[in-house]
Amino acid sequence: MQIKRYDTNQCMSQAVVHNGFAFLAGQVADDTSLDVKGQTTQILTKIDALLAKLGSDRTGILAANIWLASAASYNDVNEVWDAWVPTGEAPARACVESKLAFPQYTVEIGVIAAVRST
Amino acid sequence: MQIKRYDTNQCMSQAVVHNGFAFLAGQVADDTSLDVKGQTTQILTKIDALLAKLGSDRTGILAANIWLASAASYNDVNEVWDAWVPTGEAPARACVESKLAFPQYTVEIGVIAAVRST
Amino acid sequence: MQIKRYDTNQCMSQAVVHNGFAFLAGQVADDTSLDVKGQTTQILTKIDALLAKLGSDRTGILAANIWLASAASYNDVNEVWDAWVPTGEAPARACVESKLAFPQYTVEIGVIAAVRST
Repeated sequence: MQIKRYDTNQCMSQAVVHNGFAFLAGQVADDTSLDVKGQTTQILTKIDALLAKLGSDRTGILAANIWLASAASYNDVNEVWDAWVPTGEAPARACVESKLAFPQYTVEIGVIAAVRST
Repeated sequence: MQIKRYDTNQCMSQAVVHNGFAFLAGQVADDTSLDVKGQTTQILTKIDALLAKLGSDRTGILAANIWLASAASYNDVNEVWDAWVPTGEAPARACVESKLAFPQYTVEIGVIAAVRST
Repeated sequence: MQIKRYDTNQCMSQAVVHNGFAFLAGQVADDTSLDVKGQTTQILTKIDALLAKLGSDRTGILAANIWLASAASYNDVNEVWDAWVPTGEAPARACVESKLAFPQYTVEIGVIAAVRST
């Protein structure tokens, strides 16, 4: 089992790569004083950085799971999301409401991405 | 990164295929006046159609995520689901309660499927 | 489509293997009289057993989804989880709050794992 892990602690890795697929941990904002759009922007920037590390980028995202602490954030998250997604290369997506690990988080996004073979 | 996308708009693709795996967007009913069983039937019909487009079918489903707006819908969804699943070829499954993007949706189903190599 | 299923009934398989990846059904405790830590321990034991059946083990887990019936269980689940995860080999993870199919379940965990090629 050839597995490559990134940013690993005892609880989780931020990304794990196997057989051309990368699984990212659900990303949350570092600065939770930000509003929904600000948290979403920060999350997507973290996803960009993780994908760059492991040999992919946002055009390689296959599937995304978006968890909203409140479904009322749907339009705000989508506005930031739609501006970030490369036109013509949007992933499959599911977006549902779930309270997150801590109440200061308003959005969490996890993705599965294709990795360039090297 | 060889990636094939289906029914893509700026927000998401309805299906994305890479390396023999298809990731479908979380499917919801088009006619939200339907009750839980009706919405589930419509969702499964949409999944059949998407899988047909990309070279798979319901026997190729590996994993399914079912989100119920209310856990009280569990038995109704299961009744439709169990009748639809090919005997002996049921996918792995997780079924949890999450409010969905809009209150008129009672069920959302996302799947990962194997794609025939061509 | 070469697909191998384990513990299949009409509703779901407990695990499905394709192309070197195993998808496990969301696991819940068999003994729901147990508290959160007890249920988590039982779930992880079931995951160990399923992975052993299909030619993997907890070092092969790529991604995990943890659903908590209450986000208040976060620390209890993490304590059991962190002791179970092999140091240096933690999977990607997302942990969110969702009510589960039945109120006696406090935790549900689903994983995707790498399978040894044979």
